[in-house]
Amino acid sequence: MPEVNKLKVVIIGGVALGAGAAAKVRRMDETAEIVIIEKGPHVSFANCGLPYYLGGVIPDRNDLLLHTPESLKARFEIDVRTRQEVIAIDRTRKVVSVRNIVTGDIYEETYHKLVLALGAKPLIPPFPGLHLPGIFSVRNVPDVDAIKQFITLYQAKRVVMIGAGFIGLEMAENLRALGLRVTLIEKATQVLPPFDEEMTSRVVDELKRMGITTVLGDGVSSFTGDDRARSVILESGKEVQADVFILGLGVRPDVQLAKDAGLALGVTGALKVNDMMQTSDPDIYAGGDMAEVKYMIDGKMHWIALAGSANKQARIIGMNVCGMHVKFRGALGTSIVRVGAVNIGMTGMTERAAKAAGIPYFVSYNTAGHHASYYPGAHDITIKLIVEQSTGRLIGGEVVGREGVDKRVDVLATAIFGRMTVEDLADLDLAYAPPVSSAKDPVIMAGMAAEHVYDGTVELLNEWPTDPLQFQIVDVRRPDETAKGMLPHAINIPLDELRTRIAELDPQKPTILYCRSGQRSYFAHQILKGHGFTQVQNMSGGYVVAKYLEQAKVNRVAISVR
Amino acid sequence: MPEVNKLKVVIIGGVALGAGAAAKVRRMDETAEIVIIEKGPHVSFANCGLPYYLGGVIPDRNDLLLHTPESLKARFEIDVRTRQEVIAIDRTRKVVSVRNIVTGDIYEETYHKLVLALGAKPLIPPFPGLHLPGIFSVRNVPDVDAIKQFITLYQAKRVVMIGAGFIGLEMAENLRALGLRVTLIEKATQVLPPFDEEMTSRVVDELKRMGITTVLGDGVSSFTGDDRARSVILESGKEVQADVFILGLGVRPDVQLAKDAGLALGVTGALKVNDMMQTSDPDIYAGGDMAEVKYMIDGKMHWIALAGSANKQARIIGMNVCGMHVKFRGALGTSIVRVGAVNIGMTGMTERAAKAAGIPYFVSYNTAGHHASYYPGAHDITIKLIVEQSTGRLIGGEVVGREGVDKRVDVLATAIFGRMTVEDLADLDLAYAPPVSSAKDPVIMAGMAAEHVYDGTVELLNEWPTDPLQFQIVDVRRPDETAKGMLPHAINIPLDELRTRIAELDPQKPTILYCRSGQRSYFAHQILKGHGFTQVQNMSGGYVVAKYLEQAKVNRVAISVR
Repeated sequence: MPEVNKLKVVIIGGVALGAGAAAKVRRMDETAEIVIIEKGPHVSFANCGLPYYLGGVIPDRNDLLLHTPESLKARFEIDVRTRQEVIAIDRTRKVVSVRNIVTGDIYEETYHKLVLALGAKPLIPPFPGLHLPGIFSVRNVPDVDAIKQFITLYQAKRVVMIGAGFIGLEMAENLRALGLRVTLIEKATQVLPPFDEEMTSRVVDELKRMGITTVLGDGVSSFTGDDRARSVILESGKEVQADVFILGLGVRPDVQLAKDAGLALGVTGALKVNDMMQTSDPDIYAGGDMAEVKYMIDGKMHWIALAGSANKQARIIGMNVCGMHVKFRGALGTSIVRVGAVNIGMTGMTERAAKAAGIPYFVSYNTAGHHASYYPGAHDITIKLIVEQSTGRLIGGEVVGREGVDKRVDVLATAIFGRMTVEDLADLDLAYAPPVSSAKDPVIMAGMAAEHVYDGTVELLNEWPTDPLQFQIVDVRRPDETAKGMLPHAINIPLDELRTRIAELDPQKPTILYCRSGQRSYFAHQILKGHGFTQVQNMSGGYVVAKYLEQAKVNRVAISVR
Repeated sequence: MPEVNKLKVVIIGGVALGAGAAAKVRRMDETAEIVIIEKGPHVSFANCGLPYYLGGVIPDRNDLLLHTPESLKARFEIDVRTRQEVIAIDRTRKVVSVRNIVTGDIYEETYHKLVLALGAKPLIPPFPGLHLPGIFSVRNVPDVDAIKQFITLYQAKRVVMIGAGFIGLEMAENLRALGLRVTLIEKATQVLPPFDEEMTSRVVDELKRMGITTVLGDGVSSFTGDDRARSVILESGKEVQADVFILGLGVRPDVQLAKDAGLALGVTGALKVNDMMQTSDPDIYAGGDMAEVKYMIDGKMHWIALAGSANKQARIIGMNVCGMHVKFRGALGTSIVRVGAVNIGMTGMTERAAKAAGIPYFVSYNTAGHHASYYPGAHDITIKLIVEQSTGRLIGGEVVGREGVDKRVDVLATAIFGRMTVEDLADLDLAYAPPVSSAKDPVIMAGMAAEHVYDGTVELLNEWPTDPLQFQIVDVRRPDETAKGMLPHAINIPLDELRTRIAELDPQKPTILYCRSGQRSYFAHQILKGHGFTQVQNMSGGYVVAKYLEQAKVNRVAISVR
């Protein structure tokens, strides 16, 4: 047993959560004995920077190594043991068995408190041909070093990136930046599966613009080759030849050791923890990618592997290990990725998640310039809000655009954290100067549009009608806009001519209105209502979102209360 | 009297609030008669864009004209009368007297509801010499046209900008961009008087870098010249010669007409309104720069002339005029300005305001990269939080940096709107990807630092001691950092050597710790506390903020609970 007067904390895993928890323990307790046992060669490296190191954006691999065993020793008096692996936990004796990977030696280490920070493992199904050289995954610095070496050695020209999640897209961008011909393959019918599909259409366009070939709705079946992998065969039978193949199929919580020790898993398959980040053994804490987290929207346990939560949990574990009773308040799954010139981010529930959770909701889209329209260089931002039907509370937001996406995502995340409604969003007092925003920021505009739905001012179109001829569909944009395309069966009456040409419409016939973003058609909606039209529906998001939806093959031109 | 079955709304002033309220009335009521009476030649122009039009960033003056009388007629069926002035309001008869500025004709116009949207007037004290050609103010498009013409006509080389508020700085930047030699003169001892002084030090540096001469603490006494103004004489007696002189001394609510009509003014001298934006006459509404607003922090009435509130109030007035009972929830005075490569923004109370309001508070500074440090191009952001002492509630925030300032200001504004505490800030789930943020966003870092003060973990240094020799002042930065300068009387023990060199310090002697930003010195604070040091204070904001404070001549190297 360890010295009784001195807290001894053993931490298994030394990257984000492990290193953070260790440092926090030290800040709480100058005398504690702190041991980190890390299987890999590095502690505390910037795994989110790996794609950018590959692409040369981050030129020096040392920049990724935020800490070394030596620096953790100097600063926090932590005993870091890399290339050592915990192979068993004896909870009764409070002892872990450690294997030194280099020497093969096995020894025991006692603890008062144990912290599991094993993270996640890449998901790699046993594809035939997976053993061939030239197939890589991306989990740590040596992985990227190996890819770099392989590309140089074989003068690789073509690469297949498998998986179009966050890492997959960042890798594709960086591989393209190296001058490689990149094919991106994704089994789902969309890139970025965590997002609602229509919001990712703009990313697909951007990938095309970047010269990246995207294959959606087709998964890997096998790899073939000779001395190294030469092709991937897809489930459709399609073959894609390349010199390098990189797997980014997502990750799974690394729970084997915990399971073997008899710790309870949660419903998601990740490790079960309470608000204080304790596992089913109160002396064993866990967090980060291996554990479940409470989802702030519904208070249920989800598995969300994101760095932001891991960092907060590290701090909480550090405090609780030292005798405090601090609770982790939950996560929103807020995330963002840049792909070329496009940024896309989300927070809280997607529409898909709200539907799956059985929460009555409505959604509202809005497109507006990222700063004042009269100031040069304003780029469109499209915001999708997911709103709880009964209360008007914001439960999710997705944002896509070029500039200023991160700002709007963070404002929405803060609003959701504060359990704000769409009325609150519309009333926010945000910073305005022409180069950074508009007098009505896109978030405020989005809040106002959603408020109109919530309070019943505006009825939105739910689905594109199966019998469009039963409707009068009016495009209220200017002719210079409609010249580039209109929705099927629509007639064009520009908003500013609507009053004088109102006789062209039948007040008794159901009417669908749209414009570019949904704002002018809202004005038109109010005009027609004011003139006694009884059934008028506005297309939220307008032509911009209709095109996104069409591209995503989502049969809905706008979304309404359901 | 107007037609009884049809609402008639007369709106005095057609820029931000007036045009917005008119459009909202129309969206509420298709049959209402809506008249806008505007003294100037333009309605609904982008006044915040004026400096950028001057500098050529916005090349086409038409881009500033968001609406014309014709476009407001076509879209909203509004009767817009420019170059006409309301000279009296007869509240008993519900009639306004209007003078046509072009013809001189006077006529009466009836109303059911009257909206006052007169905005603010530039503050122009009666300086001797003010009549000379070459002295301008900046309120509308013709003002800027006149400045442009004057510069061309006289081939102006030197300009004096008087007033270093938001407009003054934006004007200075744009005048400089035109190649002029710019002298910026401000009576206050700081630029941007709404901010706490030390936060503006970085702006002063940036002005210098841009080649703008800044004169602080010296006001205008008079202008001298011959056929045109040639010099401004300052209160100090100093004379500054130039070809053009521009006044940006701020604005005052334009309340004369309202006062003459017997409407009540508020404590601030601006027009008194209730939550529904009604003046003391319930049929007369007002908002925007001429009226008071409820300040969200303390619920009291303040005068805050900002576009964001005007836009929200326009909507509320439009609804209430049409019979609804919507309340304006208040403002936070959120604002931002870009000066060269520096952005500075604020929301809620400054420290000065909190002190003046007698609210027990503490402040906490934090400096961190605007995105992940390992991703190239991270620029420092300094955040100052003003926190209610008794509750930990955030009551104000100021942010200065190059990139990502607007995002942090908006997150803080949203947090204050949601009445969040610094603990909430630390727990926010914000979006992280290397190009846009860090796993711990600067806002989260700032929240954590403030939380340590709130919960008593860390004691901050309040003021730089008058007897520094009574203290041991320890700079815990690396030698390569301290080589560029240290605070007086400080000794250097790098953080990573603190444990081994702890014998160099006396545990009984009061100890002050600092580093670059306040984070490493917090680590050092915890080490010394753990080793039995009884009086240890951390300098919030570290050397970075100490330099700001020194430059601003604020005798405080860090700020603490008081």
